[in-house]
Amino acid sequence: MELKSKLCLVVLLFSVLLAVSASLDYKERDPELKQCKHQCKHQRGYDEQEKQLCEQRCDDYIKQKRQEEKQRGREGGGGTSFYRYDEDQYQGQGQQQQDQNPYLFEDQDFETQIETDQGRVQILQKFTDKSDLLRGIENFRIGSLVTKPHSFVAPHHHDADCVLFVFQGRPTITMVRGEKRESHNLERGDILRVPAGTPVYIINRDDNEKLFVVKLLHPVFLPDQFETFYEGGGENPESFFKAFSPQVLQAAFKTERDELERLFGQQRQGSIMKASREQIEKMSHSTRGREGFWPFHGDEPSTPFSTSSSKSGPFNLFKKRPSQSNRHGRLFEADSNDYKQLEELDLQISFANITRGSMTAPSFNSKATKIAFVLDGEGFFEMACPHLASQGGSQHQQQRQRRSSSPSYQNVRGDLRRGTVFIVPAGHPVTAIASSNNNLQVICFEVNAKDNVRFPLAGKKNVVSLFEREAKELAFGVPVREVDRIFNKQDGEFFLEGPNNQQQGRMWSVV
Amino acid sequence: MELKSKLCLVVLLFSVLLAVSASLDYKERDPELKQCKHQCKHQRGYDEQEKQLCEQRCDDYIKQKRQEEKQRGREGGGGTSFYRYDEDQYQGQGQQQQDQNPYLFEDQDFETQIETDQGRVQILQKFTDKSDLLRGIENFRIGSLVTKPHSFVAPHHHDADCVLFVFQGRPTITMVRGEKRESHNLERGDILRVPAGTPVYIINRDDNEKLFVVKLLHPVFLPDQFETFYEGGGENPESFFKAFSPQVLQAAFKTERDELERLFGQQRQGSIMKASREQIEKMSHSTRGREGFWPFHGDEPSTPFSTSSSKSGPFNLFKKRPSQSNRHGRLFEADSNDYKQLEELDLQISFANITRGSMTAPSFNSKATKIAFVLDGEGFFEMACPHLASQGGSQHQQQRQRRSSSPSYQNVRGDLRRGTVFIVPAGHPVTAIASSNNNLQVICFEVNAKDNVRFPLAGKKNVVSLFEREAKELAFGVPVREVDRIFNKQDGEFFLEGPNNQQQGRMWSVV
Amino acid sequence: MELKSKLCLVVLLFSVLLAVSASLDYKERDPELKQCKHQCKHQRGYDEQEKQLCEQRCDDYIKQKRQEEKQRGREGGGGTSFYRYDEDQYQGQGQQQQDQNPYLFEDQDFETQIETDQGRVQILQKFTDKSDLLRGIENFRIGSLVTKPHSFVAPHHHDADCVLFVFQGRPTITMVRGEKRESHNLERGDILRVPAGTPVYIINRDDNEKLFVVKLLHPVFLPDQFETFYEGGGENPESFFKAFSPQVLQAAFKTERDELERLFGQQRQGSIMKASREQIEKMSHSTRGREGFWPFHGDEPSTPFSTSSSKSGPFNLFKKRPSQSNRHGRLFEADSNDYKQLEELDLQISFANITRGSMTAPSFNSKATKIAFVLDGEGFFEMACPHLASQGGSQHQQQRQRRSSSPSYQNVRGDLRRGTVFIVPAGHPVTAIASSNNNLQVICFEVNAKDNVRFPLAGKKNVVSLFEREAKELAFGVPVREVDRIFNKQDGEFFLEGPNNQQQGRMWSVV
Repeated sequence: MELKSKLCLVVLLFSVLLAVSASLDYKERDPELKQCKHQCKHQRGYDEQEKQLCEQRCDDYIKQKRQEEKQRGREGGGGTSFYRYDEDQYQGQGQQQQDQNPYLFEDQDFETQIETDQGRVQILQKFTDKSDLLRGIENFRIGSLVTKPHSFVAPHHHDADCVLFVFQGRPTITMVRGEKRESHNLERGDILRVPAGTPVYIINRDDNEKLFVVKLLHPVFLPDQFETFYEGGGENPESFFKAFSPQVLQAAFKTERDELERLFGQQRQGSIMKASREQIEKMSHSTRGREGFWPFHGDEPSTPFSTSSSKSGPFNLFKKRPSQSNRHGRLFEADSNDYKQLEELDLQISFANITRGSMTAPSFNSKATKIAFVLDGEGFFEMACPHLASQGGSQHQQQRQRRSSSPSYQNVRGDLRRGTVFIVPAGHPVTAIASSNNNLQVICFEVNAKDNVRFPLAGKKNVVSLFEREAKELAFGVPVREVDRIFNKQDGEFFLEGPNNQQQGRMWSVV
Repeated sequence: MELKSKLCLVVLLFSVLLAVSASLDYKERDPELKQCKHQCKHQRGYDEQEKQLCEQRCDDYIKQKRQEEKQRGREGGGGTSFYRYDEDQYQGQGQQQQDQNPYLFEDQDFETQIETDQGRVQILQKFTDKSDLLRGIENFRIGSLVTKPHSFVAPHHHDADCVLFVFQGRPTITMVRGEKRESHNLERGDILRVPAGTPVYIINRDDNEKLFVVKLLHPVFLPDQFETFYEGGGENPESFFKAFSPQVLQAAFKTERDELERLFGQQRQGSIMKASREQIEKMSHSTRGREGFWPFHGDEPSTPFSTSSSKSGPFNLFKKRPSQSNRHGRLFEADSNDYKQLEELDLQISFANITRGSMTAPSFNSKATKIAFVLDGEGFFEMACPHLASQGGSQHQQQRQRRSSSPSYQNVRGDLRRGTVFIVPAGHPVTAIASSNNNLQVICFEVNAKDNVRFPLAGKKNVVSLFEREAKELAFGVPVREVDRIFNKQDGEFFLEGPNNQQQGRMWSVV
Repeated sequence: MELKSKLCLVVLLFSVLLAVSASLDYKERDPELKQCKHQCKHQRGYDEQEKQLCEQRCDDYIKQKRQEEKQRGREGGGGTSFYRYDEDQYQGQGQQQQDQNPYLFEDQDFETQIETDQGRVQILQKFTDKSDLLRGIENFRIGSLVTKPHSFVAPHHHDADCVLFVFQGRPTITMVRGEKRESHNLERGDILRVPAGTPVYIINRDDNEKLFVVKLLHPVFLPDQFETFYEGGGENPESFFKAFSPQVLQAAFKTERDELERLFGQQRQGSIMKASREQIEKMSHSTRGREGFWPFHGDEPSTPFSTSSSKSGPFNLFKKRPSQSNRHGRLFEADSNDYKQLEELDLQISFANITRGSMTAPSFNSKATKIAFVLDGEGFFEMACPHLASQGGSQHQQQRQRRSSSPSYQNVRGDLRRGTVFIVPAGHPVTAIASSNNNLQVICFEVNAKDNVRFPLAGKKNVVSLFEREAKELAFGVPVREVDRIFNKQDGEFFLEGPNNQQQGRMWSVV
């Protein structure tokens, strides 16, 4: 009888969901998710709609579960020991905990948007798909573009603002702005903003070196989602012109249907293709489109090869003097004073090269949140995170628990290697340590940057040494000279000697 | 036994929900929704609370279902044929697909807020009630005001900024700004911003013509919801004064209760009423309130009959030279340089009059999203929409599918007639075509307008012809002369001859 | 058999949830919630994860229920009587209705974040935890700090901007800004902005008086949540340094582990502690840190004891002339013209001292929403609220009902006493009445303040008297002289004689 059978389906579904509640990590290949969806697919009496509804429920349920696990996982950490961290981690056995670190993203968190034999575009998943704790930066996306020498990225535009950083290779980027064409020959260290909706194509004019570009995207229509539109193309990439009806295209182009089908049917090499040496050469010097009215208020057309001179041109991070530099590392920074184009996005960009065996002094940003992309080397970062914040989700619950007690902090740690992304929220103390084998090179996009201040917590100019002596005594409950002895001992600034070098022996003995 | 019976209720409820999963479109008169709520109302053992909770669940469930249907519907479209559109559509048989078009709104999507024998106020549903894809513009609402000649709209204020456009009739709009009264005699083509919270009343001083005004609203308290507050009135409209307790009103007005009840009890004609010829005449020329301090920074009081001169006065779109004009149509545009009041809302307004049988060249906005309201005529629009974007909802799922493939685009099409609203997201290529019978007249509100650039895709100045010859060859995979022949053939600009006129015969033969 | 048993659990859970649907108000001690969670805890066959998932469901369910009750409760109110308010309320029997007032917050709505024998920090729950109607201000939080004389609040920073108002006591607040230390001796009436992430510590230098400070917070990372980070401390408060691994700390401080453990192990007095008279004296005059580059754009270092002179210093509300003043009360206001620091937060601050037995004239804000904190005295407020708006939640449903009828307004009323917080949304007419025993003192934070205008609805300069005579006649449907007689009778302005004094007898007789 109808109702009865339906009832069974519901019940089965739910019981399956509970039955599969074992520890799991959310992938399409996730066995429980598979099982759950399998159940949906094979329920007798389900029509297509019900099946899809059912599978949707599986997705949602498993996803929520994963989040809750993460949170419980984090709560699990820390706890009784003197230090709010898990000794195991330091031994590199912290993988499981690492999976639950909402501030760390690794290879499997990237989606490959484009892949041809000439190159690849990868975009990191939405931050909020990892954790609600990241909803503060949900309207930014980060990704990378890697292509072979002499490659060509087909003309396209995004419904998103894009800021890119060239780490490797020598791209020439051509944008159509208003009724002008504008080309820029970029090199290592160049930052370029491509305004939302700007038609653009890219070549890697280098004869030998791969192109490696990191992109930060800020969607302009949907908060956390952007699309790519290909002006040219045929079968692959598909040109958006093909979406229009033939009648409309014929009228728009005053051209017969078969001609249009020929034009929009040829291209099959994908959106990243090989270009000939001649084509590369021809496109490797800045060119100008026909003259015309300039719609970008305040922007004059950029001069060829211009770097920081033109407002719409690139800015080279490495041609500026480093803001921090010693044998332990160098820091290059650019804000909207250096590159006007960053102002509208309220963005600051910094590049840190941490010498192997060195570290950055623990510090925090007053209001900016850092999206860091590891370009090269290995190491790890440690961040102090208010324990309950890590729960995310139910703020309500948190606060009830928090009653009358000061917050406690958890050690959030992540291993860093090329391609790793990590997030440092405003106010959170953090440090990054380079392995003893290689320099650790990181590009950081700091959002909400206006009036941001970096506060060092160790080394010269550390915050604590600025307190009044009475404040130090009261804060630590010890004689002021003890506070000063410790906080004044480290005479380095920003980049310091790392743990590995200093007390190798000592260090491992303690564990 | 308690639990058992309760259990049955739950089960019944769920099974009903599943039972009703047939195709449906969400209206109060929706049979399944009715049935579901009926079940709630007549469950034995349900107390009031449980019933309401139950009905709420019906609403939510059906609504979610509708959305999912939309998405599946859209996925269904397109597919294998050369063009990403459904030939049927062009034959006008695309109604079903049209219901699932998240960018198109028709009569049934409007709510009638006010209706009296003298006029009507209609507001479009929340954009996000139609589709999550529109959450980028969720904090805007659009609607219309239509009244008879010699009508009076009672004094009121909104908790929303309002920009209105006069298409028909001759309204006089009186606002109280600070301690001043300010009246403006408006005519066809006038744009006026009524700042949030400004007390305002309106007459149509025309002796014969109806008043037809289109309104864009930007709520200031709740993101996507606004309320109307009537200073005057009695039974209908009800004055907000009636919400206060008699004791408070007596003190506030130093007046006895019975007098107050008399004052706030008379009006019963509704908020849009008939005014006498004398009253209309008296109110038909700009008047000034008593002098006083001006609280609006930078604004001086406007002079009577002022148009663009005064910052707070109106601006007439038709008194500006059209930015595009040929025998196929005319385009009038106003941005914050023309009308300062648009700056704070980051708004641009344009009016397009497309000659019958003509069309607009396919083009896209770099960052602005267009909310278009059809004022007169018929026709249709076509838009290229990245196929997967149409799914909305689960970005996560999308990306998994999208792996390693370039996006494909879907033809989003909608029939246009007076009162239709359609949305064109930033970056999306679009074209509008007028029927061969009437001119198509459309008023467009473009939000996120600062630095927006319109990129033409066909006709003079089309983007593709700006690419370098090598880029054209690589992008299309054909000799450059073929690309140029097609993209240079159309010598029209912005407004072009439409499909109907051009190749009538050819066109229908293809289908 | 597995599935069967699981099934029972689900069913039990749901039936419990329904079974507990009686009227309740959401507290941890809420009996139904307890019962629901109890069920979860003691379900045989539930593993830890399932139990927690289950309890989470209890939380969510009960919370949703509470909201729906609130809404139904409000719908219940008002209705048929001439006035849209419940006579009982005025008799003070409106407690139940008051619990459902989404614009009113009382003691139980505060969370105690910190409590030591020296003082207490309380933060109001998230506005959206009370009602979705408040999502317009969800990214603000409000709270208070109360400490004994000669107390010390340990050095800390928030990931939130903070604006504080000193109502009682004489705090000295020391901030580290960039590489400077900056101290300000504050007194009653001082407003100070502490920028997000600024390390700060506070003393109450007064020998006898308690410190009472009201804080408005604007989180910079998560929209509606902020965390506190303690630079100093040991066991309690815990220093965030303890989150780092010993190896990292040893390197950062060039210091042995045991020394660090000593430093970060001593403090156990909690984050608000007693300071000695000597320590207080030493910290009671502004000091300066070592000189250095100033990173706050446009800000010069503040001079000691500076009030409004320095951009980063405080501003005293009471040293400005009151904007309104008569025997019924005084109003002090500060906006970004008075105190530059308010500009970035788009904030205005006002302090109202309503004489006992007096009231504020009904009025509304054009675009600002008011967050009001009662500092002293008793009384009540009345607000006119569009009836359907009060439903919040399903806007969709609202609009269907609203069809063709003008809105009706509900009387929203709340009793005010020290510590009560109430919200006045933009556009909503409101009045506050002081009891006949004490002055009512209220500090108001008005967000979205730029270009805001206050419109009086009674007394001098009331909006209605500015309408044209024809508009008055049409709006009220009575001869204009009747309108004028009532709206011109009250010659007071802003602060008026209250109901209690005026027509005591009359008043109670009417009920």
